[in-house]
Amino acid sequence: MPSPLTVNAERLWQQLEELAQITDPDAPWTRRAFTQRYLEGRAWLRERMHEAGMTTRLDDAGNLIGTLPGSEPALAPLATGSHIDTVPSGGRYDGVLGVLAGLEAVRSLQEAGIRLRHSLEVIDFLSEEPSEYGVSCIGSRAMVGKLSPAMLDFEEPGGERLFDAIRRMGGVPEALSQPLRQPGALAAFIELHIEQGRVLESRQLPIGVVSDIVGIHRYDIVVSGQADHAGTTPMELRRDALAEASGLIKTVQQEARRQAEGSAYLVATVGRLTVSPNASNAIPERVEMVLEVRSNDAALLEGFFPPLLDAAQRQAEDTGVSIAATSLSEGLPTQCADEVQAQIAAAADSLGLSALTMPSGAGHDAVYMAMLAPTGMLFVPCLDGRSHCPQESITRQQAADGCHVLAETLRRLDRG
Amino acid sequence: MPSPLTVNAERLWQQLEELAQITDPDAPWTRRAFTQRYLEGRAWLRERMHEAGMTTRLDDAGNLIGTLPGSEPALAPLATGSHIDTVPSGGRYDGVLGVLAGLEAVRSLQEAGIRLRHSLEVIDFLSEEPSEYGVSCIGSRAMVGKLSPAMLDFEEPGGERLFDAIRRMGGVPEALSQPLRQPGALAAFIELHIEQGRVLESRQLPIGVVSDIVGIHRYDIVVSGQADHAGTTPMELRRDALAEASGLIKTVQQEARRQAEGSAYLVATVGRLTVSPNASNAIPERVEMVLEVRSNDAALLEGFFPPLLDAAQRQAEDTGVSIAATSLSEGLPTQCADEVQAQIAAAADSLGLSALTMPSGAGHDAVYMAMLAPTGMLFVPCLDGRSHCPQESITRQQAADGCHVLAETLRRLDRG
Repeated sequence: MPSPLTVNAERLWQQLEELAQITDPDAPWTRRAFTQRYLEGRAWLRERMHEAGMTTRLDDAGNLIGTLPGSEPALAPLATGSHIDTVPSGGRYDGVLGVLAGLEAVRSLQEAGIRLRHSLEVIDFLSEEPSEYGVSCIGSRAMVGKLSPAMLDFEEPGGERLFDAIRRMGGVPEALSQPLRQPGALAAFIELHIEQGRVLESRQLPIGVVSDIVGIHRYDIVVSGQADHAGTTPMELRRDALAEASGLIKTVQQEARRQAEGSAYLVATVGRLTVSPNASNAIPERVEMVLEVRSNDAALLEGFFPPLLDAAQRQAEDTGVSIAATSLSEGLPTQCADEVQAQIAAAADSLGLSALTMPSGAGHDAVYMAMLAPTGMLFVPCLDGRSHCPQESITRQQAADGCHVLAETLRRLDRG
Repeated sequence: MPSPLTVNAERLWQQLEELAQITDPDAPWTRRAFTQRYLEGRAWLRERMHEAGMTTRLDDAGNLIGTLPGSEPALAPLATGSHIDTVPSGGRYDGVLGVLAGLEAVRSLQEAGIRLRHSLEVIDFLSEEPSEYGVSCIGSRAMVGKLSPAMLDFEEPGGERLFDAIRRMGGVPEALSQPLRQPGALAAFIELHIEQGRVLESRQLPIGVVSDIVGIHRYDIVVSGQADHAGTTPMELRRDALAEASGLIKTVQQEARRQAEGSAYLVATVGRLTVSPNASNAIPERVEMVLEVRSNDAALLEGFFPPLLDAAQRQAEDTGVSIAATSLSEGLPTQCADEVQAQIAAAADSLGLSALTMPSGAGHDAVYMAMLAPTGMLFVPCLDGRSHCPQESITRQQAADGCHVLAETLRRLDRG
């Protein structure tokens, strides 16, 4: 086993800072996909890729791909990457770290005079964050043929179709009815990302090896009662939608806590809720809310809400309130490849960095890449678990540790 | 005992229809206090009062008062009335019925050749409904000296002070630092109103004799947690403001149901609730809600929320969530005068109309009039208990029954 690669922590940090400056000035840190600002960011990134000795291209989905040629051109390339778009007033590291750490890994390999057998791609996926077109992970979906014609027809509020927006980004939307790449087209894919949670931080661990990425089931729930006068309607004549909704929210929380005590990961959240008419002297007539259930266990995920809904509906009947639920999405969990997990763990170990095997509670481009290639992810902690906000923060050391493990893992996968 | 007075059901109904036509045409039935439309309604009403043989005046609070002189001028007048302003897109009967039934009672007395000993006032109180100035029952409050200088300084969103708005309505706001009338200035006050609830309708009763008017305690409750990522934050690391708020709402409902089983009236409602950041993938950081507790029993009213808040705060501490409550208002119950209740009940009985003694769950101008004079209220049912909406509905017979009992009660109070 050769001695570990060195990565340049200072250079990586410098690049993170530089790209962060390409932001809407009045709302740092904002670099929304499909905007001029985003194109500026990509132009900057493309130059950096060239400086690192890579060739670059845009694929038909509008993904920016830098390639460092390997010594055995017949081998399918290794790939790493993430995304440089942000949510509005988002952070400097979500997505960006995965792309720039890939770039730094390439530079470190070059400087160490190491030539990989496999070509190495660093991919900046188009628009991973929820976009104004109502769909996320646009580039990675499209790469595997999962961006449907219906999605291509989605319009942002100004009326532009996603189809046309992708063309504007340099993609070829006509080509997206087929997968751009077939399974086996990549030797492996690995994505470094900030955790966006507090698990690593609370255990003071520098590296997370992702075991699987949760599936997400999302439900729109409408609770319907009657908007009577809050003063003149005795308790026994009420059909209070909010009181029933509250019972359901409390049950969801208790049941999720109970089920989360097992070995699988499960979280359930009502994050969005609106009340009508929402007046202090009117009994709530209607509550609309979104329930999100996430788990890395498909059976747990699919089995969580239906029995709770059923029980709530039966109970609500007694009070003249009705509860209806519509499924908004039904994504299944994604298993990370065992061999990639093992290599990440070994790489961390070789660098003396403690690692925790853990699920990813957030979705990532890796979900789609797992349809193409053995895929893995690694996490670094972020301050107080915060992301998607200007306060999102990591240290130079955390960034460097993640980059170091990423580079080392790529070298190991190359040999493997 | 003379034979009962006859009221003209057709004429009363006609007048209700006529006044309803004075509405903002695009949002029936809207006649907001302080608008041109409202002044049109009052001009119409003043003419009707003159036709009925009354003199009219505006008092310094902007209340429109029609007076039918009695045969014994030394006696303090009897008074009845309510209000002709509406909520936006309100109903045709809330308030209006009480004023026009008073007018019809005067006409019936006149046509029957009956002259009361007491003068009889029909009062249209200024702006009973919640106004853009942030205060309700403006005219009745001011009559008893309860419209404070601070309230007179309240501004509507356009920047006009209530002080100036009252002047615009013909009042003399400078005079409102003192009560306009002292206790004893009226022999009695009686207000007819639609029930705005479903109690009478569900029991198929035409008349409610109001025993007391609930006091209202209103609390602004803020539940503060942390807005973590809904996917990456395990259940045990969460500080979910909505889950805690839901527990409190459910407890409030259960406890109100339990306490409402006693002899006193008690209702508790969370009608207004907002969640921040209100995104499906974010754990709720903050819930702000308004709790309204109403009861005709002062001890029950004051004792309801504090222990629930205390228990909720202690429980929330365990989950790192905080709950803070601020009192928004602390109105006490108003007892209706026994002799007025007795006369309403006797009047209904003499007309063969079954009556239920019941509390009023809504506030009314009568709350303030009770500070001046022995005061009573009577209710008629309204369709499905609905009010403050265009669908608010009563039948011609229900209106006539209420008017008939009102007129008969006034005649009895005049003799008593």
